[in-house]
Amino acid sequence: MTLVVVGSVGIDTVETPHGRAENVVGGSSVYFSLAASHFTKVRLAANIGSDFPDQAWAALRERGADLDGIQSFDDQPTFRWSGKYEGNMNEAETLLTELNVLAEPPAIPTSYVGSPFVFLANMGPDVQLQALETLKGKVVFGDTMNLWIDIQREALLRVMKRLDGLILNDAEARELTGQSNLILAGEALLQMGPDIIVVKKGEHGATLFTKDFHFALPAFPTKCVVDPTGAGDSFAGGMLGYLAHHKDLSPASLRRAMVYGTAAASLTVEAFSTQALTQATRKDLDERFEQLVHFVRV
Amino acid sequence: MTLVVVGSVGIDTVETPHGRAENVVGGSSVYFSLAASHFTKVRLAANIGSDFPDQAWAALRERGADLDGIQSFDDQPTFRWSGKYEGNMNEAETLLTELNVLAEPPAIPTSYVGSPFVFLANMGPDVQLQALETLKGKVVFGDTMNLWIDIQREALLRVMKRLDGLILNDAEARELTGQSNLILAGEALLQMGPDIIVVKKGEHGATLFTKDFHFALPAFPTKCVVDPTGAGDSFAGGMLGYLAHHKDLSPASLRRAMVYGTAAASLTVEAFSTQALTQATRKDLDERFEQLVHFVRV
Repeated sequence: MTLVVVGSVGIDTVETPHGRAENVVGGSSVYFSLAASHFTKVRLAANIGSDFPDQAWAALRERGADLDGIQSFDDQPTFRWSGKYEGNMNEAETLLTELNVLAEPPAIPTSYVGSPFVFLANMGPDVQLQALETLKGKVVFGDTMNLWIDIQREALLRVMKRLDGLILNDAEARELTGQSNLILAGEALLQMGPDIIVVKKGEHGATLFTKDFHFALPAFPTKCVVDPTGAGDSFAGGMLGYLAHHKDLSPASLRRAMVYGTAAASLTVEAFSTQALTQATRKDLDERFEQLVHFVRV
Repeated sequence: MTLVVVGSVGIDTVETPHGRAENVVGGSSVYFSLAASHFTKVRLAANIGSDFPDQAWAALRERGADLDGIQSFDDQPTFRWSGKYEGNMNEAETLLTELNVLAEPPAIPTSYVGSPFVFLANMGPDVQLQALETLKGKVVFGDTMNLWIDIQREALLRVMKRLDGLILNDAEARELTGQSNLILAGEALLQMGPDIIVVKKGEHGATLFTKDFHFALPAFPTKCVVDPTGAGDSFAGGMLGYLAHHKDLSPASLRRAMVYGTAAASLTVEAFSTQALTQATRKDLDERFEQLVHFVRV
């Protein structure tokens, strides 16, 4: 089944204890698509500038992704983000953000409308709502960030009422609900609209909440985290790619999808930018799936 | 099989966002024994003052624990600790420590010598080494804390060479090894002596390392953490109680033991002091075991 993702494409400069990567490929929709395209047909909608390198799309083209929704602007550069990770690298310090082409909402091709699965990557909730209404997807998941919780909370709450699933990190879950206990935060988020909540906890894994069951998974036991950028988007891509392919939101399917999301995220963080995720094969993901299942089996 | 624990008995004053408990029962060996005594015969060695309330031992007596190693001092008060937890309550701020009777090493009854399982709760490594040599236990696990890593590192390293298992928290694992990545820290700890390393991560669960396999378990999804004091000691008690009863250090047994440890810790944190753990039944532990297994099953 096709999976539409609407989100950002960026050119990033990242510094971590392992080194520095300048002007490399980034953006939520790119990480998401690279992970999801191992499982299902991905249709991507995002804005770029003429400075974005065409060869960055090679892996997605090979994996059959539909890039008709990539809108290129001649007169503006691509979105730029620069950040720095220190210590345990659980959180980036943002050094620079230049919205550039992100100031325009992404254009949704009519061929994307009615897609069974949709992921609204982190964008302003007003843009998410517009995309959601245009796309008329059957199952819609979304992401968000602390900025929108702070400055567009009402709009975000309106989006949440329309989402089937929300994937966010632990700090965002706490901020959005005012609950410091993550189990209570997860349950409070379920009351805000989505039937499925996934709280990502970086090196501590992720927890899934539905009204019928909860499921917790540790992170993959990665020995070398080079660059955490895109881990959360890769997680969402692996998870939703698996769900969209199997057209199945049963508890068993959701649990397995979480494992694939974790596998995808673990590949991402082992190299700068999208390097590891671009080179990874479906076999790599399947191997990590098996390793992770073994790692958590009681 | 009998399980000897050598450690502290204390009178604690604890403040958390849920309230304050003054002059309540505490101490590593008490929490450990209350959890372990649901599974196996516990023999406890620790020092107390004449101010320690005798009724605190009722639950352990009922569960068949051997208290011959409780050494009471008429001329000194019991060890006192006072601490405060804030925010996510992952770490206590110590407000007061009065060693009192802990200045003397615990006296080990000869009936304890040669016990198949031994747990050396958090004490100075010199005291741990002395107890270890006296006890001649077959399988010996230990705990430690940041203070000893700071001021008695060499002695601690000598103890570690003699341990079969070490149970410590994530900050201690990082400090002891100098590795910020916990997987690398776990592997480095295995090189320092013990065949089994358990790294406790508070609300993020625990990870077990052996040279043959690793195992990760999230914390029990507790909605109300009233007082985290003793969670780590209860974890160790549940885990070692299970292992001692089954005389089995196989991977399957170690995994199940971790689940029981987590179940015991989750009971502890739901009330102040040893209250919840004192009232808990084996059935409570078994129910949480089943819930946790379901919570993590892929």
